[in-house]
Amino acid sequence: MFEFELIATDHGSSARAGRLQTPHGVLETPVFAPVGTAATVKAMKPSDLKELGVSLILSNTYHLYLRPGDELVREMGGLHRFMAWDGPILTDSGGFQVFSLSETRKIDEDGVTFQSHIDGSYHRFTPERSIAIQENLGADIIMAFDECPPPTDYDYVARSLVRTHSWLERCVAAKTRPDQALFGIVQGGIFRDLREQSAQFVTGIDLPGYAIGGLAVGETKTQMHHVLDWLQPVMPAEKPRYLMGVGAPEDLVNGVLRGVDIFDCVLPTRLARHGSATVLGERLNLRNARFKNDAAPLDPNCGCYTCRHFSRAYLHHLVRSNEILAHILLSTHNIYFLLELARQMREAILAGELAAFAAGFLSHYPEPD
Amino acid sequence: MFEFELIATDHGSSARAGRLQTPHGVLETPVFAPVGTAATVKAMKPSDLKELGVSLILSNTYHLYLRPGDELVREMGGLHRFMAWDGPILTDSGGFQVFSLSETRKIDEDGVTFQSHIDGSYHRFTPERSIAIQENLGADIIMAFDECPPPTDYDYVARSLVRTHSWLERCVAAKTRPDQALFGIVQGGIFRDLREQSAQFVTGIDLPGYAIGGLAVGETKTQMHHVLDWLQPVMPAEKPRYLMGVGAPEDLVNGVLRGVDIFDCVLPTRLARHGSATVLGERLNLRNARFKNDAAPLDPNCGCYTCRHFSRAYLHHLVRSNEILAHILLSTHNIYFLLELARQMREAILAGELAAFAAGFLSHYPEPD
Repeated sequence: MFEFELIATDHGSSARAGRLQTPHGVLETPVFAPVGTAATVKAMKPSDLKELGVSLILSNTYHLYLRPGDELVREMGGLHRFMAWDGPILTDSGGFQVFSLSETRKIDEDGVTFQSHIDGSYHRFTPERSIAIQENLGADIIMAFDECPPPTDYDYVARSLVRTHSWLERCVAAKTRPDQALFGIVQGGIFRDLREQSAQFVTGIDLPGYAIGGLAVGETKTQMHHVLDWLQPVMPAEKPRYLMGVGAPEDLVNGVLRGVDIFDCVLPTRLARHGSATVLGERLNLRNARFKNDAAPLDPNCGCYTCRHFSRAYLHHLVRSNEILAHILLSTHNIYFLLELARQMREAILAGELAAFAAGFLSHYPEPD
Repeated sequence: MFEFELIATDHGSSARAGRLQTPHGVLETPVFAPVGTAATVKAMKPSDLKELGVSLILSNTYHLYLRPGDELVREMGGLHRFMAWDGPILTDSGGFQVFSLSETRKIDEDGVTFQSHIDGSYHRFTPERSIAIQENLGADIIMAFDECPPPTDYDYVARSLVRTHSWLERCVAAKTRPDQALFGIVQGGIFRDLREQSAQFVTGIDLPGYAIGGLAVGETKTQMHHVLDWLQPVMPAEKPRYLMGVGAPEDLVNGVLRGVDIFDCVLPTRLARHGSATVLGERLNLRNARFKNDAAPLDPNCGCYTCRHFSRAYLHHLVRSNEILAHILLSTHNIYFLLELARQMREAILAGELAAFAAGFLSHYPEPD
């Protein structure tokens, strides 16, 4: 049900183009997934997402568990039906949000007790609980419950790995639904031995896909590239690889060059809410007065609805007026930008031209620090 | 260019079905126009409006003059191009907003000086200024600058009428663009003699259409109906009649029965922002806990995108989570409801069945007070 087929591999890099079957459709990789935290990709109707060419969306277990509740979502026919998205969905395990969003949290070997960021109420997640919630939600791809440790504290990361690996085994044992793919998550911070150790353990369990967690959390770009370089030979080529939470354009390109197939990030919709647009090599802050009289579209070469219809001057006006349409139009553009980038990389891989494409694209971005 | 053709008139009432030519397309009347105050119908893309079947939108001169400025809109190719709406647009004169929104205002026979509700800066509108601004904006239908007085103060309304009529003559003299239709506005509060006197004066000037102003501003439903009944025989049958600012469903029906062709109102989008949905005979507040587990759509008989895809439980979740998609989906439904009502009335007029339709529809609403 979750067959992954490699269609083409790049000669000069680890990049691949693939095809992952899911119960709700095929993912053509490399693929970028926008995030629908609360069962909605912010400011986007499902029909808007289809029109953009979105194939996979991510939704957050932590948020949906707290509101509206995973039991309610199950009662309403599952997440696909609840949010009227009939394409593939991936849910995270809730672990990252427990560590990054909840008021207070107490971790032990069995799980995590935390306070809701909404009302301060107390809750407890364990590997078994995370899987049960994700089974109620009913996404196509579900994630193992893990700890995302501070990436540069060797001793902590090493201790945390033991826990994350034991939790993975409990997730595998707890999982019951055959129509969901459980992905394991490789942790290990910025340390080569820990990353390799984690990759060996996690990919030692036969799962339909593997994720790389704990990146894009404060480390440098160079550190991120190193981790991906170390992991590439250790992770099985025949399984999809998912780099969690990564969505800066240059990171997508660098990830694909290092063998990543799936990406997700809140960046395109978050930037939109802050009035910003992603264009090649730059972020435009539409609130800026220099756009007041600018009759040009965000990007004259972009084919998205926003760029085909509206000027920067209009977007500036909408942002200044706090109009909801600003969120809609900027989200449309920002998501399209990353989808189009993933599509272009896929085509370049198929055409054997990824090296040239990547070099051209990355020339618009600073050298990694 | 602004030919108005009566297609059918009802036998039992003053209702009519018509067709109004504009430079940006034909309006099939009765028609409801959603309001795009700041050059955007809140939370709606132009393509969403097209899909809903919107033919006319209203935009506000007061708001656009203050931000982004009518000169800028002209520089950007006019309002149609600026907001990417290629259908008919109507702009009001700014008068109503000056009286209802601005911080302080001082009215004299020549015009009104007022403070911006955005930054407190001082501005002055005169009939000539209002027309010049509306010519910069470039809507298909523009409105005469008038005063909307407190409707129940006879002496004030009578004095104000003199001013409104003199301002109308100045608007007619100031207007230069042949591709815009200037509508005059009948005022006169809730008083029969003043309304008739105003209608005679205003319709004595040959204009492509006439509006009825100063209603839905605090008078009772019965008073509104009386005013419409009095005006019906005085206003020329061969010209379109526009009832300004009216958008409650039962008011649309009562307006059509009394010969009104065009309506506009912020109600559908404002209700949406407050988490409410219009259904037959009722407003649903989606924030209400009773919708938490409600798997039904807002209205099982509605054909809008929202009702075809989403449950009340999902909308409840979106409203509680302050998600932008709540505004989008509720605005979609609320606008569709009024458009569909106008379409059904038009069909009923053409089929000679308006009396039955109106009686059935109004049976779901309280008797007018």
